[in-house]
Parts: sequence; C-alpha cells; structure tokens
Amino acid sequence: VSAFGVIRPRDGGGPRVAWRDGEHELDLAAALGDGVFAQPSLNALMARGPQAWADARGRAREAVAAGTAETHDAAGVDALLPFAVADYVDFYSSLEHATNLGRMFRPDAEPLLPNWRHLPVGYHGRAGTVVVSGTPVRRPHGQSRAPGAPAPSYGPSRRLDIELELGLVIGTPSSLGEPVPGDRALDHVFGAVLVNDWSARDLQAWEYVPLGPFLGKSFATSISAWVTPLDELDAVRVALPPQEPEPLHYLRTEPWAWDVALEVELNGEVVSRTSARHLYWNAAQQIAHLTVNGASLRTGDLLASGTISGPGREQRGSFIELTWNGAEPLTVGGEERTFLRDGDEVVLRGRAGDVELGEVRGRIEP
Amino acid sequence: VSAFGVIRPRDGGGPRVAWRDGEHELDLAAALGDGVFAQPSLNALMARGPQAWADARGRAREAVAAGTAETHDAAGVDALLPFAVADYVDFYSSLEHATNLGRMFRPDAEPLLPNWRHLPVGYHGRAGTVVVSGTPVRRPHGQSRAPGAPAPSYGPSRRLDIELELGLVIGTPSSLGEPVPGDRALDHVFGAVLVNDWSARDLQAWEYVPLGPFLGKSFATSISAWVTPLDELDAVRVALPPQEPEPLHYLRTEPWAWDVALEVELNGEVVSRTSARHLYWNAAQQIAHLTVNGASLRTGDLLASGTISGPGREQRGSFIELTWNGAEPLTVGGEERTFLRDGDEVVLRGRAGDVELGEVRGRIEP
Repeated sequence: VSAFGVIRPRDGGGPRVAWRDGEHELDLAAALGDGVFAQPSLNALMARGPQAWADARGRAREAVAAGTAETHDAAGVDALLPFAVADYVDFYSSLEHATNLGRMFRPDAEPLLPNWRHLPVGYHGRAGTVVVSGTPVRRPHGQSRAPGAPAPSYGPSRRLDIELELGLVIGTPSSLGEPVPGDRALDHVFGAVLVNDWSARDLQAWEYVPLGPFLGKSFATSISAWVTPLDELDAVRVALPPQEPEPLHYLRTEPWAWDVALEVELNGEVVSRTSARHLYWNAAQQIAHLTVNGASLRTGDLLASGTISGPGREQRGSFIELTWNGAEPLTVGGEERTFLRDGDEVVLRGRAGDVELGEVRGRIEP
Repeated sequence: VSAFGVIRPRDGGGPRVAWRDGEHELDLAAALGDGVFAQPSLNALMARGPQAWADARGRAREAVAAGTAETHDAAGVDALLPFAVADYVDFYSSLEHATNLGRMFRPDAEPLLPNWRHLPVGYHGRAGTVVVSGTPVRRPHGQSRAPGAPAPSYGPSRRLDIELELGLVIGTPSSLGEPVPGDRALDHVFGAVLVNDWSARDLQAWEYVPLGPFLGKSFATSISAWVTPLDELDAVRVALPPQEPEPLHYLRTEPWAWDVALEVELNGEVVSRTSARHLYWNAAQQIAHLTVNGASLRTGDLLASGTISGPGREQRGSFIELTWNGAEPLTVGGEERTFLRDGDEVVLRGRAGDVELGEVRGRIEP
C-alpha cells in the first residue's frame, strides 16, 4: 500500500491525514507541519490540486526513507473514512456484468439494452451511507415481491450480495456549465479506492422501475480506507481494442484500461479473481459523459466503475453472477453457498503491479 | 414569506443567516449574537434540532416586532443557496404525474407500474448541482436518439422541461442501521422549499434504462432561497381518503397532505395552478420508506416530492404533461409553446394559507 488516508491513533489524539507505505503509517500533520494534514478528511488536500498531491507524497516518502519521522504501526491506529463523499455516482461499465444481468432478467431479449454501447450508463447513489472498510453491514429490511406473489411483503433481504468495483475520487472540482473533455478528465482525479457496493437483489428487483436502484443499494457502500494516488496506476495502464460502434466524439479516446488485479474473498476463501481491464468504458469516458450536460465535479465526488466481471465464470464480481442467480451454488468452506448469510465476511483486494490497494472488508450482521 | 435563509448584503460583508418576514430580512448573526448564525449555510442551525429552530424563530420575530434590530430590504441583499445539500432524493409521489407519464410512454400497458401503489418510488439525484433561485440554467447538451433513428446523436436538448416540486430539508440526522418510523419522521425535518427539477426529456428517455435518470436531470435543480419552518404548514394540513391497497405496516399513517397552493409561471403568465395535496404519498411515508433499509438521514438532505400534478389539465406540474408530450401546445404570450426555449423564464410560487413560500426563478441560457 502506498496511499493517503485518515488515521486516529488508539493511544489518543484526533484524526489526522497519514501516508501509508506498507505497514507503516506516517502522521503527515506531525511530519510535515501543514494545517492541511491536521484534518479529519483528505478533502482539503484533495482540493489543492495535483501539484500539492505530488509534493505531499514526495515529502512523505522522503520522511519515511530518512527515518526522521515517527510512524505508527498499522495495528495501533484506526483508519477512518478517508474523505467526505460529495456525490456518489455508480457506473455500469463492465460489458460482461451488464450482459450477465440482462441474460438472467430478460432471457428472451437482447441482453444489452440499446443505449449500453453508446454511453457509460450510470446513476447516483447515496453518499451519506458510504462507510469505511471494517464497518459492519446490517442486513437491510424492506419490501420485495416473491415470484408469482400478488403483493409485496416486508422482511429482511434474502438475496444480499456484493458488487466488486474500482472507485475514483475527485480532487480538483470543475465549473457548473462547463463539460470536462476526456483528455483532461484524469487531471481532476485524486486517486483510487476499492468499492463494495452491497446490494439487496430482492429489494432492488421490486423497486427499480422506472427510476433505478434506491433502497436495494442505499443501506451501505464500503470503500477502502486508503486512497491510492492515480500515478500508481500508470504502470498497469493497458491498451484495448477499439470500441464498436465508435462512440460519439465527446467519448472518443484511444481505448485503454487499468489492469488492476482484483479478488473477492468470502470467509477467507477466494471466490473470484478478475481485473479492472475488463471494463468497457474507461475513467476518462465516464468523466466526459458525467459532465457533458454541464454538471460540475466537486472535491470528494466518488465515481465507482460498476461491478467488474471478466469473461470467465470465476471472474465475476457479484454472487448473483457467480451463482447464476442462485441456481449454481459455489462451494465455500465445504458448504454450498449462494447469497450472503449473517456472519459472512467479504474482503475485496486489489493490486496494481507491485502496489497493493487497500482492502475493503465487511461482515454481515443480522 | 416567514423563513430562514442565507444572505450577503450588497454593500459588503460575508454571508450570514437571516430571518425573512415579508420583504424585510433580519441579519440573525447581528441581531442574536450567536455564532451559529455567522455561517454561510443554515446547516449548523439545522443540526441543533427543533427546540433551537423554534427559539431562533421566536427571537427573530420579537426582534422584528420590537424594531430593535436593523433589517435589510430584500432588494439590498443577495439570497444565497440556504444550505449545503447532503444527499438529494427525488420521489415520484403524484399519482396523476406517474399516470400521465405512463400513458404517454407506455400507451398499450397499465400506466402505473406494479410497485407504484405499494411504495413511494424514488431515486437519488445530484446534490452538487442544486442551485439557488435566480441562477441561470444553461441548456444541457448530450446524447439522445430521435424516434426511429438507428443511433443516437449529440446536441443541445430540444425537450427541456421543468418539474414543480415541494422539497423537505432534513435538520436532525438519524443513525445508520436504524429506520425512522413514520410517526417520528417529521421531527427530523427543518423546513420546506420549492423545487424546480429541470429535466431534459430527450436525454432522459435515451439514458434511463435500466438505472434511472442521470444526465437528463443532473445539470441543474433549482430551489427557493428561503426555507419555511415546517410548523408554518400545520395550518394547511388536510386529511385524505384511505390509500388503496392499504400499505405495508411501516408505511401506515392516517392519510394526510399539505394543501400548499402552487403555481407555474412562464414568462410572466401562469400556466398551471395545483396543490401539494394531490400527492399520494406523504412526507412521513417518504421518510419511513427512505430509512426502512437502515439508510441514515443527514443534516442537509433534500427530499423532493416528485412532480406535483392534479387531476385537471391546468393542474399539471411539467410541460411534458401540460402539452401532452408536445402534441397539445399551450398559448403563452400569444404564441404556441411546448418545451422551453432559450430566454424563457420560469417562476414557481407556493402559498400555505397566509404564508408565501419563497419563489424559484430560473432563465434558460443557450
């Protein structure tokens, strides 16, 4: 891990910005003596722009290398939610994920809807229920309608799922009314987090027409405590074949993706291995699309990729896909498993070449 | 108007919290000498809870009545965005609006989808592009697909519309994992604003499956500069007939609504008159639903009702309804009109008995 975060030492003191290198966490407020680090969130640093981010990282690395600054052992601090989330946007940019869900829910129709290859479909999620890795996730209650039932019923979700996603965190804001062109989009991005967009599939299936997911998602979204600077992903940038059909002009880029290796672990057992390279729409295209209507970016916006699934069965980023809507259970810990049970713990991990991304961990509570 | 807001005097000085009574605006930071009013938003006051809100209002009214405090003339100040928006949720709670849109877009099917009478359908909008009344609205560009066209094209929206809504502003937060019961829901509400949820119908129609509206809405949402305390709506609370079918237990209330009279004005001419009493789902039900899955409320959450349309043709809260998708133009200023043109100015007004709600004004720029 080489990343920014916010820590609170267990032996006392308030939250402050930290730089993590491996298992060591450097208190930047103490080491660098700048008020921008004596904050309970990264937002003030994020708003300062790319030069400030690079400077902070450079000085942090020097301090760690020189051994001149005290570091905390990771076990001695709590890592807090690293930034105040402004708006949370969730895209739907994996071709395999969108195709899998289309096949399951509309078996007699084209799995991809007509707009999917023309624009990065997305929607707004609930920013106020984004929580940091380690926060327990309480199983949500709500309405769902059993297949064939005449009316809905109320109860705990029986189809609780995960979504494995890569999230980008906006640092530099943009202005209302001024679209951000794709070739400038990454200038606004402070860094990357892993995202588990917990999903109650039964609530979602009943509620989502015509305005999209709401309570099926809004009970919790977990992110890693550490935000990896975007530069760390440069080493794993890969070219992709051209998109077909060619997108409209504002979405044209040389096609590329980040080959960030990703894993899903259920109760200590890896159940999926995939990569962010399987995303069809890349981050530059997502940001160009999000702002083409003049919508502004704010410091703290979280843009999640949507569930990342690869072409293989073991490369799927949700249990609804891994178990084909529950029809093809996985064997985990010697048991047949479909959706999440109380007590289950899910950990998402990521790696960009030599650099580990912070994990996202969550346990289901009743 | 009897409402809280945030003003900046044109003759200098920073933003501060104000109380407006009619055309007079009392600078509460100066009059009451409490730091909670020396703020660029109402959020600090909102977080203090109902007793603090009532106290502030009582003291403000005393100061105005006694003539002991200097007031600003409304013409001498700029009224700013009154609160920092946390999450913006938009419901879809008017039976007539949902039915009208269903008839237009799915003429051969039941106009209401199966879930509509069982839960207050809603979704998250973009909090970062909520703007205060008077902010110009730039016509959004984006993708749409003309009827019968094989592929989408890019350009300015040709079907720019309004949505007339009533918005509630959350003051007291709730805890993650703890649903707010309907009979406690209004305790969390600081006050009400008018909302114009500008909508680009052509962008929305192409993008919205399967995850809901996104760029068709996110370019701007305008709210009134003045937040009317919820108590001011008590006088216009009306009982309604029972809902059919009876909702699930967590949504049961004695059915009621606020009879807030509402108007839409285009270029100085009133084109619609309706009332918030036409909403099928009330605010207590909306909040109980929003939190039933454990989602928390934050200070600054904006909950909009969805477009408010009544049963009569002149009671519809959007141009797509008033002109039946453009097929039945209105005559305004001697001209046939359907969707909004550059230069058009729309003003929404509301009145709860004797109390005017602050207006929402916006002009379309190219």
